[in-house]
Parts: sequence; structure tokens; C-alpha cells
Amino acid sequence: MNHFLSVEDVPDPEGLVDEALKLKKKPFSFQKLGRNKTLGMLFFNASLRTRMSTQVAARNLGMEVIVMNVSQDSWQIETEDGVVMNGDKAEHVREAAAVMGQYCDVLAIRSFPTLKDKKKDYAEELMHQFSRFAGVPILSMESATLHPLQGLADMMTISEYKKVEKPKVVLTWAPHVKPLPQAVPNSFTQWSRKMDYDFVITHPEGMELPKRFRQDAHIEYDQDKALAGADFVYVKNWSSYKNYGMLGLGKDWMFSQKKLGLTNDAKVMHCLPVRRNVVIADEVLDGPNSVVIQQAGNRVFSAQAVIKRLLESL
Amino acid sequence: MNHFLSVEDVPDPEGLVDEALKLKKKPFSFQKLGRNKTLGMLFFNASLRTRMSTQVAARNLGMEVIVMNVSQDSWQIETEDGVVMNGDKAEHVREAAAVMGQYCDVLAIRSFPTLKDKKKDYAEELMHQFSRFAGVPILSMESATLHPLQGLADMMTISEYKKVEKPKVVLTWAPHVKPLPQAVPNSFTQWSRKMDYDFVITHPEGMELPKRFRQDAHIEYDQDKALAGADFVYVKNWSSYKNYGMLGLGKDWMFSQKKLGLTNDAKVMHCLPVRRNVVIADEVLDGPNSVVIQQAGNRVFSAQAVIKRLLESL
Amino acid sequence: MNHFLSVEDVPDPEGLVDEALKLKKKPFSFQKLGRNKTLGMLFFNASLRTRMSTQVAARNLGMEVIVMNVSQDSWQIETEDGVVMNGDKAEHVREAAAVMGQYCDVLAIRSFPTLKDKKKDYAEELMHQFSRFAGVPILSMESATLHPLQGLADMMTISEYKKVEKPKVVLTWAPHVKPLPQAVPNSFTQWSRKMDYDFVITHPEGMELPKRFRQDAHIEYDQDKALAGADFVYVKNWSSYKNYGMLGLGKDWMFSQKKLGLTNDAKVMHCLPVRRNVVIADEVLDGPNSVVIQQAGNRVFSAQAVIKRLLESL
Repeated sequence: MNHFLSVEDVPDPEGLVDEALKLKKKPFSFQKLGRNKTLGMLFFNASLRTRMSTQVAARNLGMEVIVMNVSQDSWQIETEDGVVMNGDKAEHVREAAAVMGQYCDVLAIRSFPTLKDKKKDYAEELMHQFSRFAGVPILSMESATLHPLQGLADMMTISEYKKVEKPKVVLTWAPHVKPLPQAVPNSFTQWSRKMDYDFVITHPEGMELPKRFRQDAHIEYDQDKALAGADFVYVKNWSSYKNYGMLGLGKDWMFSQKKLGLTNDAKVMHCLPVRRNVVIADEVLDGPNSVVIQQAGNRVFSAQAVIKRLLESL
Repeated sequence: MNHFLSVEDVPDPEGLVDEALKLKKKPFSFQKLGRNKTLGMLFFNASLRTRMSTQVAARNLGMEVIVMNVSQDSWQIETEDGVVMNGDKAEHVREAAAVMGQYCDVLAIRSFPTLKDKKKDYAEELMHQFSRFAGVPILSMESATLHPLQGLADMMTISEYKKVEKPKVVLTWAPHVKPLPQAVPNSFTQWSRKMDYDFVITHPEGMELPKRFRQDAHIEYDQDKALAGADFVYVKNWSSYKNYGMLGLGKDWMFSQKKLGLTNDAKVMHCLPVRRNVVIADEVLDGPNSVVIQQAGNRVFSAQAVIKRLLESL
Repeated sequence: MNHFLSVEDVPDPEGLVDEALKLKKKPFSFQKLGRNKTLGMLFFNASLRTRMSTQVAARNLGMEVIVMNVSQDSWQIETEDGVVMNGDKAEHVREAAAVMGQYCDVLAIRSFPTLKDKKKDYAEELMHQFSRFAGVPILSMESATLHPLQGLADMMTISEYKKVEKPKVVLTWAPHVKPLPQAVPNSFTQWSRKMDYDFVITHPEGMELPKRFRQDAHIEYDQDKALAGADFVYVKNWSSYKNYGMLGLGKDWMFSQKKLGLTNDAKVMHCLPVRRNVVIADEVLDGPNSVVIQQAGNRVFSAQAVIKRLLESL
């Protein structure tokens, strides 16, 4: 793999899931691989799980880690080509990427969408400019439109908990108090479609995920119908793609014990952070069906498997 | 030790002081203990000594370190149970603690009091919620009401400089320009009472420290009387516990060369940072009786002794 | 070397350039030198290249690194002696430096000028107070008036690309949108004068660099004349020293392909970050004569050579 910006960069998605699960059993078995190699982690936005788990992953592989809160530690980066840089952005990505690519062996980047300019967000300018100019592998730690490390951790979790060969996996929209990116549901959908799942998406009408990543995934607008017989329920809010960045209404979509009752004793997943009693009820999160903590734990090994692949390709 | 939130978690306070002093002589003698182990350092508030010394301590033991400025690097954490999370806090401590406990082998936390809500501050909600949900040892790097690593470093310092078996140790209040927590004097008192000191607290009336940690420690309201014959003077401002969070007046309580003259050539201590010529006069800080720098140096080994104990209990 | 605050601290500037170039070929050949040693990196101002490259350099030498954004992670530091600290600065440099000097084996510091108070800036109070009180070597990562690690990297770059023994090296002023420090041109001048270059400075009248570092370096006010026959052109904006901190005008000083045509096919240098189409035109930065990326790459080894020297002197 040259870069890891989406599951499309992975020649063998199921193989990578297996590799990540193996690393979970023996986290320190490849410590020589990263020796004298540096992972540069660039945060253009806030992060907790990704920030910590990716550091642990890199160090499990023997790498050194440099963490940068880009705007806070340095300054704003221009991504547009050909501009006269007389505004508030002090450095162009052409230089920033090329320079950091000389200091680091792999660059990991987190950058959220504006949720205001759909075209710009879905162009993924920052990731593409870094891929183009850094001269080293780029690892997405969540971009404007995708969160592929989360998707991989999600697949690991389903693989660990599934009781049937082809589980029914339901991605269900949930309410929130502010507009959130589509990155997690996009990646979950994209990854799920590579697996052998009975995969269903359910959400209020108008909240359709972009065709680009969803393709022909099955949508069932009736949440009750969608949940029937589900082995896994992935609960997640996202803002509208159609009315780009709009919050979307539907308080009754909060995932409760009653809704869990409709499923086949489903495991309940969420990428976290989760707003309790807005997105998922306390009773579910604190109950035996929730696997959100274990799912977050898998973030170390999803990152570790991907970084291992990137190091092997150097 | 399962956690280190106060001296009460230490079965043998004097033994831990000795252990810390031994580590000071051979800082690198337990580098295998922390191999492939990670210390997560979570800062909800500013820090200089604690931030640096705890990192050095962990690395002396061979650990990896992850530093998080929680609110700045990620988002605000909800600690109250049962709430509908529709405000400005994006993640509940139940998830945050459990997740970070999977990524790290020990979690160190710094969190200051509000100084407005006494009941809430003294409930130490954040520390207790982390202890409850993280699944790994919690190490206080100063909580709302206690600073036990500072207390341990203070005991080391007294042990190094004392000339008599049972020294007279005086904790004296000093003025300041803004209200400060009671954490340092609380911990110094709590630790001192475990040692064989002639221990006296002196402060203006109304500035009594809470009974909970002070218990029956001797208070002498006349500063001159208190200082007479002192071998160690610990100078420190704190805000009122009684009129919770109030600054407290008494410019004449600034510790000066004249006051030092009342003592038995006492060593002068302070946890730092210290406001010169407000809390302690330049002449004292720059004179031969000040041990504030050496005291701060001991912070590495107080942290190292505690982390060593926590690692041994894993 | 006891400290590294300017090229004047280096007994053999050319020897240090050679040493840095050797380290570039074998970056990991001195990993035992830094074992169990800690570099404390203190940022009073933003940084990208310096922040990353210095971390890589220290780790190449086997050191541990602690990074502090001082004002953000801790609090403001008072540098003036004798003051009553009743304002917004919580700690005096006398304590801060002495304490951090106990935790770290080398302290690296970045601190920008006010650009308002010439006397204060050129007194370099912060660096000198740290040198005086830390008790360990101080490494400048750019001070109010000098950026000596940049200067060393610049000399390495010229050494790598020069085709004649005594190249013509031209430092040319360029326009900008906001007032910038004189640190980079001061250090470039100071270093260049230690080398065997035909060295020329060109800038609009009134933009003279301070005599202190420039000494009798040749100034040619006619940019075209200065560029004629140049083997290296170092493009850089700086604010006025004379009218201290004033921006300086001259849009026509932007370095373009046309100006490059006046040179002897010169290599074009800049310390970065560079504002494209304000300081240097896209056509030059993206053309074959630009060595700005390679120059930034040398920052690792300039830092590594200096830290190696400081470690050897411990």
C-alpha cells in the first residue's frame, strides 16, 4: 500500500482484518520493523481515540512518534494552487508536505470537513495534496469524508463477535445536537460492502449517504423493519448530504432498549464519542449488548495493521 | 497500590520516601519494568513541573508516554451520571476512561478545583470516575483537593536536609494575588502527619484547612510563635476553605529574611511556581536557606517511586 | 560548546558544517551518546520545521524528548529581576530555568521578538536568563535576533550544491504582508561571513540589517547588480531594524523567474515558510533551481550536529 486513505487502497480488506486480529494477540511481534522510523501525526482537528491509539500502534511497531496540532503548534496551511499568499495562511501544502515528508517516514493526518462546502469537502484537497507532495505514505486519521481506520476496527469487532457466517449488520442513523460529518458512516458502509454481510442502512428520508461510497447498499427507511433480526447495530448520527451539513430531525431515532428488543440480541456499536441519552440510551450503553469499548480498543490494532503495511512498502 | 490519589493509598509512607530517595541515586535501575507499557498523562489544567518530571520519571522506568491536553486536544468530558448529553460536553467519562484504560497501562490525571463549588470540588468526581471506569491504575498529578506527588517530594526533601530526628516543620500561609487551591497544603499536611515531625500550621484566622485532611494538626495563629525554632518552613498560599475560594488577606504574611531570622536557620520550601516578592521575598529565594529548586528536582523521583509501585501491582 | 545561541559559540564553523554533512550520511551512528538523556524543547512561539526536525535529530542521537508549548501548557514566565510578581506572570525564569535544567540534559528554546522594543529584543533577555540559571546547555531554536540552526543548515546546503570553491552568495530582501523578525537574515549573514563566500546583501535603502551581526558585509542597493553572477540567492523578507519593526515596501523585489535570469543559474534558497507569489513566484519555487525543500531537510542534521556537540560537552 502506498497510502491509506480508504478501504479502496487495500488490496485484501478481509486479509487486513485478519492481520489486525493477529497483531492484537501479539502486539510486540514486529518491533524491529519501525526501528529508526518516525510517524508524524498531524492534527488539523480534535481527537482522543485516534490520537492515543495511533501513537500506541506506532510504538508497538518500534516507531518514534511526533505529534503536531498543526494550526496551534505552527500556522495555517494553504492548499489551493496558484494563489497569491497575502492572507492568513503562512505556508503552502507544497512546502509543508514535502518538508515533513523528509522528517517522517509516514505522515498521518486528521482533517474534518467544513460541512458548508460539499464540493470542497468531497474533493479531499488536503489529503490529496499531501499524498501528492509528501513523498512518503499518507495515513488518514479521518478525512473530510472517510474514517477508514475506524472502519477497519469496526470490521475487526464484527469478526470477533459474529455467531453466524453472514451476520445481519444494520447501520442506523441517530439524532444529535449539532451537525456531524458523514465520514464514519461512509467508511463503515464502504468497508461493510467488502465483507460478506447482510448489510442494511436505515435513516429518515433525506438523510441518504452519498452514492459514491454507498453505491447500491440496501436502504430501509422503516427503522423497526431494518432492526428486525439484526446481529449488529451500528448507531451513528450524521448530517445531511443532500441538504449539505443540515442537522436532520428525529428524536425518536435514539437507540433505546426497546429498539434493541427488535433485534436478534444484537451487539451495539458506536465509534465514540457518544452523547448519552441523545444518540444511545444509558440502558443500552451500560448493558451487556454494548461493545463500544471493545470496538474502541480495536483502534490500536487497526492502526497497527495499516502502519505495518505502509512500513513494509517503504 | 491500585491507585495513587492520596497518601492514604500508600501502605508505608516512610518506606515510599526511602524508595524514592534510592531511585534518585540510581534512576535507570528499573528500565525493564516499564518496557512495552504506556503512561497516559491527561491534563485538564496547566502544568510545568508535573508535566516534565512525570514524563522523565516514566521514561526512567522504560515506559512510553502519551501526553494529552484533554480539552484542547480533544473535547470536554461529562462526569455526571444519567444526564442527557445535549450541552457542550461531547464524551462521558464512562467511555473516555474505559477507552483510555485500554490504550494505556497507567493513567495520570491533573484536574484543578472550581474554587466555587466546595461540595463538588471535595467530591473529587473526576478522579473517582476515572478510578471506577478506567480499569487501570490512576495516578493523581494534582486533583481538586490533593497533590500527593508534591507531598512525597516534600517529604524526600525534608528527609535529605533534616539535622535532627524529629524536625520542627512549619506550614505557613502567605499572601497571593488570586485564589489558589488547597491541594498542596492539604497534601503537605496529610503527608507530614504520617512522618515523625513536630508539625505546626500557621495562617490568619479564617484560613483553616479542611478538617478532613488536617485532622488534629496543631494550628498556631501567631506566625512569629509558629516560626520560632523551625527547622523547615513551607511557605504557601491557599484560598479560604471556610469562605470557599476567597483570597484571604495578610500582606504582612509574605515570607521575608526577617521572618527567616525567627527560625532555627530553617530550610525554606515552596512547591513552585512562586510569585517573588508577593509570597516569598527575593532575598530568601536567592539566599542559602532556600531549597525550592532541590525540592522541585525531587518531583522526578517521587513520581518514579509511585509509578514503579503501580507497575509492580499490574 | 556550553551553549548554542549563535555561530559565535562554535569554535570551528566549517568543521561543524562538515560534521553535519557526515551525520546526514549516517544519522544513527551516535545513538548511544544520547541514551538516558532528555532534550526539553520549550516553545514560546509557533514552529513547524524546527519543532519536527529537532525532535528527529535528538532521537537519532538516542535522546528522549519533551515538548512544551510554554504559555499554553503551563503559564507565562517573568524574566525581569527584582519585580513584585503581582501581574499575569506566574513564574520567574530563575525558578523555571533551574527546575527544567534538573529535568532535562539540554534545553532548546524558541522565542520570537516583540518587533516593538528594539532594545529589549536585542538584549535577548530570555536566552541569557536561561543560560544563566538552567545549569545545562541552552540550544537556540530561534531567538529574538538569531536563528543559528537555520544558518548552519543553510551553510550545509551551499556546501552540497556549490560548483566553485568560492561561490557568489546573495542575500536578497523580499516583500511580505506583515513584519517579520531579522533573525534569519542576521544568522545567515553571520554564518556566511565565517565561510569563504563572495557574500553580498541587497535590499531597499533603510532596510539595513544591524551592524552587530552584519559588520562590514557588502551591501549593494541595486538588486539587479547584486544578482549578476550569483551562484546562490537567499530570498528573505525582514522588517526594518532602523525604523524598528516597520514592514518595508518594495513589491518589485519579489523573486521571479526574470530575476533568476540575472544570476549564474543560481540555486534559490529560503528558510520557509514562504508566501508564494508574494516573496517568491510559483515559477521559481516549482522550478529546478529551487533547493528550499532540501535546505529544510538539512535542518535535521544541523540540529543533530549541534546537539551532538552539546552532549559531548556534558
